[in-house]
Amino acid sequence: MRMVERRKPLPVQDAIDKVMQLSFESETEIVTLRESDGRYLGVDLKSDHDVPPFDRSPYDGFAIRAEDTGEANQENPVRFKVIEEIGAGTVAKKTLHRGEAIRIMTGAPIPNGATAVIMFELVREEVSDNTSYIYIKRKVKEGENISKQGEDAPRGKVLVERGALVTPGVKALLATFGYGEVPVVKKPEVGLFATGTELLDPSDDLEPGKIRNSNSPMIEGQIKAAGAKPKYYGVLEDDFEKCFSSVKHALDHVDILITTGGVSVGDYDYMPRIYEKLGATVLFNKVGMRPGSVTTVAEWNGKILFGLSGNPSACFVGFELFVRPILKRALYSKTPYRLKSKALLQKDFPKPNPYTRFVRSKTEEVEGRIHVSPTGLDKSGSVTSLVEANALTVLPGGTRGFKAGDVVDILHLREEGSSHP
Amino acid sequence: MRMVERRKPLPVQDAIDKVMQLSFESETEIVTLRESDGRYLGVDLKSDHDVPPFDRSPYDGFAIRAEDTGEANQENPVRFKVIEEIGAGTVAKKTLHRGEAIRIMTGAPIPNGATAVIMFELVREEVSDNTSYIYIKRKVKEGENISKQGEDAPRGKVLVERGALVTPGVKALLATFGYGEVPVVKKPEVGLFATGTELLDPSDDLEPGKIRNSNSPMIEGQIKAAGAKPKYYGVLEDDFEKCFSSVKHALDHVDILITTGGVSVGDYDYMPRIYEKLGATVLFNKVGMRPGSVTTVAEWNGKILFGLSGNPSACFVGFELFVRPILKRALYSKTPYRLKSKALLQKDFPKPNPYTRFVRSKTEEVEGRIHVSPTGLDKSGSVTSLVEANALTVLPGGTRGFKAGDVVDILHLREEGSSHP
Repeated sequence: MRMVERRKPLPVQDAIDKVMQLSFESETEIVTLRESDGRYLGVDLKSDHDVPPFDRSPYDGFAIRAEDTGEANQENPVRFKVIEEIGAGTVAKKTLHRGEAIRIMTGAPIPNGATAVIMFELVREEVSDNTSYIYIKRKVKEGENISKQGEDAPRGKVLVERGALVTPGVKALLATFGYGEVPVVKKPEVGLFATGTELLDPSDDLEPGKIRNSNSPMIEGQIKAAGAKPKYYGVLEDDFEKCFSSVKHALDHVDILITTGGVSVGDYDYMPRIYEKLGATVLFNKVGMRPGSVTTVAEWNGKILFGLSGNPSACFVGFELFVRPILKRALYSKTPYRLKSKALLQKDFPKPNPYTRFVRSKTEEVEGRIHVSPTGLDKSGSVTSLVEANALTVLPGGTRGFKAGDVVDILHLREEGSSHP
Repeated sequence: MRMVERRKPLPVQDAIDKVMQLSFESETEIVTLRESDGRYLGVDLKSDHDVPPFDRSPYDGFAIRAEDTGEANQENPVRFKVIEEIGAGTVAKKTLHRGEAIRIMTGAPIPNGATAVIMFELVREEVSDNTSYIYIKRKVKEGENISKQGEDAPRGKVLVERGALVTPGVKALLATFGYGEVPVVKKPEVGLFATGTELLDPSDDLEPGKIRNSNSPMIEGQIKAAGAKPKYYGVLEDDFEKCFSSVKHALDHVDILITTGGVSVGDYDYMPRIYEKLGATVLFNKVGMRPGSVTTVAEWNGKILFGLSGNPSACFVGFELFVRPILKRALYSKTPYRLKSKALLQKDFPKPNPYTRFVRSKTEEVEGRIHVSPTGLDKSGSVTSLVEANALTVLPGGTRGFKAGDVVDILHLREEGSSHP
């Protein structure tokens, strides 16, 4: 007689906490600014000079002494003599004196003596005897149209902290402060095995009773999206000793090892025996959640082993809840978790459940409020429901179900575009 | 006397519409499934077989004939004889008859004759005379725990349309339907020139009056984020003929050409003259918006030229509003625009303005409502305010300013993580 192992489920939050208590940090490496998109900063980005580095003009116009405009108005314009002109990147040679103006371009340093800039559009120009003059018809205030040195960022300030995602805006700052090369966090390496004798490669023809392996390409995508580097090792063979040596070999070459399938209590599920033979510490092997209750996490020799369910949606959810946060933390992200928010449920969800449900869902923003609807089938074997989903609706266990109009928690899964501008 | 050109500003929405009326489509190319992350599907993805491809078991358990459980209960369990066992990927050889059960693993095809599956956990097993038996203590309904052929996706259904972003979920579907190689939309090639004699390379040491070029690395990042391929051509020289021939040469090698700076009415701004000499059709050269009012868009020989402002924030906003949507449309995206939503303004914004303002902002979700606050300085020369921004607040022109608590439109700029699970 075969015994069916009875496992005690751990609440989801406790399971996440257990994983996040494992110590796992990544190193720093140097990439070019051009290659730095989407990476995580390996150091604090500090301003090594004031921005702007000097008082400068934010517009094309004329630098003047504000006090010289006196009581200028429409009827009594004040005339200035244009004594020099400077483009961006050049510095005025002359110092401004009473009644003088210097023609100045956007970004050029404010000349000595000048206390304001007036825009081209607000002056009238005139040339007589080969000398340019401008007429100003209003009083100009001291400091008007001068971008002061350091007003954007004073020298020595930490502008972006280690672990920040390198976005286009962060790249602009890196360029400003001379980072032609950027210290970024090295991508954690994540090994991946699939298990299941029914699995065919995506390029294989279908055979009776078999299905193509969809979990591995999906998880590779999730690993990349989390900022890490996947290493796919293929489908584990249906032989315990071979499985064990493949897993052990892979562990020498990766920081984290994910297996999909093989973690249930079924006869062909080798993973529990592999953890045992390795001498790995199993953190948990059952979580109070649907889908993905059989998710197992173990630790061995500073490496983390994730045994995710073989069902596509359970596998997806298991990665998002347990693998992604520790990868993000290894990248020094201050926001390792999926963004959580409240949303208005749009459909009844009558199934009672002892476990917390993570339902693949689609959100819509309606007048500043987030609406959420489940997508497709709520079965853990479903692959199609993952396509439309941009969020997971979190329905706590121990309830009798939920009704349209209930306020529920959701986890946002990804950025969305819009069909209209 | 020099004339200052007076330009008539076009409303933002009209300017976007003018750009989107240009015809610009991309071709299709083939990449491996592994490389397909973040690309856009070049064809409709259709199910070429039912999913599941056969009736299968969603759990580990025993396949039985439901009717054989009769009136089973705690006191009167019904006994079944286990006649075979099958793993996922294998097909049962025998047909079930009255009182018989077949041990079945998750994902395995339902044996002939079986009408339900009961989970391991719900049966008691016993072996006598080398034969396995199970005892079932409740009535099982016909169809219980059977995933029906085609219930997830019937054959012939379009599951994902051309232009969809390849996410981990889409990869799972591609794998399911045998796409080891994936037709994706070719990345549009976008050339990029900076203009400005004040510009140093990010790796250069600072010099008096000069600043490092931060726009080019930023825009390269924006181009990549939009799904296209940047080609950086460097800083244009301060010589009209050289500028012209550089621009003309680049146009032979790209689909779209972006220049930053040089589009104002200043003396050193060559771009308007370059458009003229090319014989390009200028769609507009002034937009009723802040920042970025000097944004110019022209069309020549099927190529699109974008003249963005040289100010970092104006440059950023110009790209997001005008360049990104046409790139996304060339990628066949059905959502080419940034997602717009309503948000509650958290700070007064007292500046009146004739033009629509796009204010770099940070959002926060509070109990299902989106709150928005401007980030840092609202000056178009600011680089630091782009770092924190995850949205643009849209403040329509012709108003006397806005107050905290006003409901405003925002454009979401990117996905966010969370500091807590």
